[in-house]
Amino acid sequence: MSSPNAPLDLTIDGGALTARLVDFPSVSGDEQPLADAVEAALRAHPHLTVDRFGNNVVARTTLGRAERVLIAGHLDTVPIADNLPSYVEGDLLYGCGTSDMKSGVAVALRLAATLPEPNRDLTFVFYDCEEIEASRNGLGRLAAAHPEWLAADFAVLMEPSGATVEGGCQGTLRADVKLTGTRAHSARSWLGDNAIHKAVEVLRRLSEYQPRRVEIDGLEYREGLNATRIDGGVAGNVIPDECVVHVNFRFAPDRTVEEAADHVREVFAGFDVDVTDSAAGALPGLAQPAARDFLAAVGGKPRAKFGWTDVARFSALGVPAVNYGPGDPNLAHKRDEHCSLTAIAETEARLRAWLG
Amino acid sequence: MSSPNAPLDLTIDGGALTARLVDFPSVSGDEQPLADAVEAALRAHPHLTVDRFGNNVVARTTLGRAERVLIAGHLDTVPIADNLPSYVEGDLLYGCGTSDMKSGVAVALRLAATLPEPNRDLTFVFYDCEEIEASRNGLGRLAAAHPEWLAADFAVLMEPSGATVEGGCQGTLRADVKLTGTRAHSARSWLGDNAIHKAVEVLRRLSEYQPRRVEIDGLEYREGLNATRIDGGVAGNVIPDECVVHVNFRFAPDRTVEEAADHVREVFAGFDVDVTDSAAGALPGLAQPAARDFLAAVGGKPRAKFGWTDVARFSALGVPAVNYGPGDPNLAHKRDEHCSLTAIAETEARLRAWLG
Repeated sequence: MSSPNAPLDLTIDGGALTARLVDFPSVSGDEQPLADAVEAALRAHPHLTVDRFGNNVVARTTLGRAERVLIAGHLDTVPIADNLPSYVEGDLLYGCGTSDMKSGVAVALRLAATLPEPNRDLTFVFYDCEEIEASRNGLGRLAAAHPEWLAADFAVLMEPSGATVEGGCQGTLRADVKLTGTRAHSARSWLGDNAIHKAVEVLRRLSEYQPRRVEIDGLEYREGLNATRIDGGVAGNVIPDECVVHVNFRFAPDRTVEEAADHVREVFAGFDVDVTDSAAGALPGLAQPAARDFLAAVGGKPRAKFGWTDVARFSALGVPAVNYGPGDPNLAHKRDEHCSLTAIAETEARLRAWLG
Repeated sequence: MSSPNAPLDLTIDGGALTARLVDFPSVSGDEQPLADAVEAALRAHPHLTVDRFGNNVVARTTLGRAERVLIAGHLDTVPIADNLPSYVEGDLLYGCGTSDMKSGVAVALRLAATLPEPNRDLTFVFYDCEEIEASRNGLGRLAAAHPEWLAADFAVLMEPSGATVEGGCQGTLRADVKLTGTRAHSARSWLGDNAIHKAVEVLRRLSEYQPRRVEIDGLEYREGLNATRIDGGVAGNVIPDECVVHVNFRFAPDRTVEEAADHVREVFAGFDVDVTDSAAGALPGLAQPAARDFLAAVGGKPRAKFGWTDVARFSALGVPAVNYGPGDPNLAHKRDEHCSLTAIAETEARLRAWLG
């Protein structure tokens, strides 16, 4: 293991570079030392123009190519869980961030440093605060402050996807369905009107709900409408006058947020529905020329992304985007997080074949 | 208003004595000064044998009568809410404890002091800590330590009942009905099993439940089975693996606690039911000879007591008991608590006619 303060050498093997990044702790909010090291390492390569905004580093080629591809990864990790420093066991590199997503960042840094003459112009984005509240998300703040830095025809977000292309992402919407009644002492319950009992119809509609499956650009998206919380009650001897069912609707990206809200209101017609939070999904955009070439180069059968990711931020900027990274999404945030060294090498090789 | 430290004179008018007791604050836990004053006032009457246990005072006649009647009231009040000292407006005496239940205590003290030759032997019980947790209840502690002091053929608990006889009391039972499922990310809800959605059947049974009405000793008892709380949920993006519906069953006193528990388990057959708390009801016992004479003397149409009161403690000792006091139960614990002076005088007159 190198000293954490040694400059980053972006020309070493992808697995070794991943280990180097993993051993450079960068829990959300504490990314500055790593952002500094990344910036310095990228500035060492004269074919790149490097910009910085907070702890977000953007590097790009300016070759006047017909297309521009953006490759992005977040620098932060969830809190370290006694899983540093990294170590290798067989083909697996263990440690905090190996899967989510320093392996993807290592691949992106390697491509940035070693592809001085790519067939498309490239923009690399390394950003902070992805693992915490959305308002601090570096990509979101970059998009607001310098949207021109993110201009591209197609984006690859190197979130762990098991080296499979995961197109677009679902949208998400939260709503509260509120039931009201009349309080009374539970010994004289006939004087009250039980708000919890009224939730029966809300739960019936939820339990009988048939979620839609829809194919978009050849990918099947599955929706889901679920209660994620239910709260009701005043005291052990009181007929409650309020009960709230909190629902989460995960919707396919062919619906807008407004359409999703209309759908939820329709499902709960007759009830008091309050939409509390929402985020648009992202269309996979796999029919775009850049995406088609990408798919042909990396191979494999793409699938839909179930979950909301920062690809939706690209989608909101009009940039089609996919998730594609060497990490395993099921290992993200786990104590025994690890990543296959072969997957790191293969992911890099496929992207290099596409762009080289 | 007399000095709070002056000895209590039990021979003054019932309304005046009520005001005197109300102006002698005795919030639960702080009853000692009032218990001391009550004990001293009762000891001034040689026809009474007086015992003391903690802040509980028991006075009795020992005339060798064929029957013994017990008259009880609690000395404590809920916390004072800017509603002391007492004041009179027309026929109404205002102040903390006027209704619940220093008016009843005043009537009992007047009877104790002024009926040296009652037609039945009398036991008067003045106890502490009725308004707080059951484990501190003075009557309960007396029943455990000196059950022989509470021996009687019939008991009158002077809880506020609007000067109407309220017979017995309902029992109460609390149970948790627990639903379990499997957690999953809400973006991939088909991998989970939503425990909140499963509560639909529990709420359906509750909302369709037909509570029983049953006549006992001529009184109609109404039962009720209600959710008083519902809790479920892990986070806004997680399919919850647990949901608990907390139910409260108020049951007529012809069911034992065990029968009530069996009934609740039967209603929720197929679900995980955990009985967390219960208290037996009390039969009205209005067919007992002492009770029949009591009803004839006090007049009016008795009704069932909806709510759990300390009459159940007498019932557990084998003593039939009723609630009968001048206070209005709907004013108990309110800031504008008050009691009719006429009701105080009439309640005393009726009991005096029965016992004199």
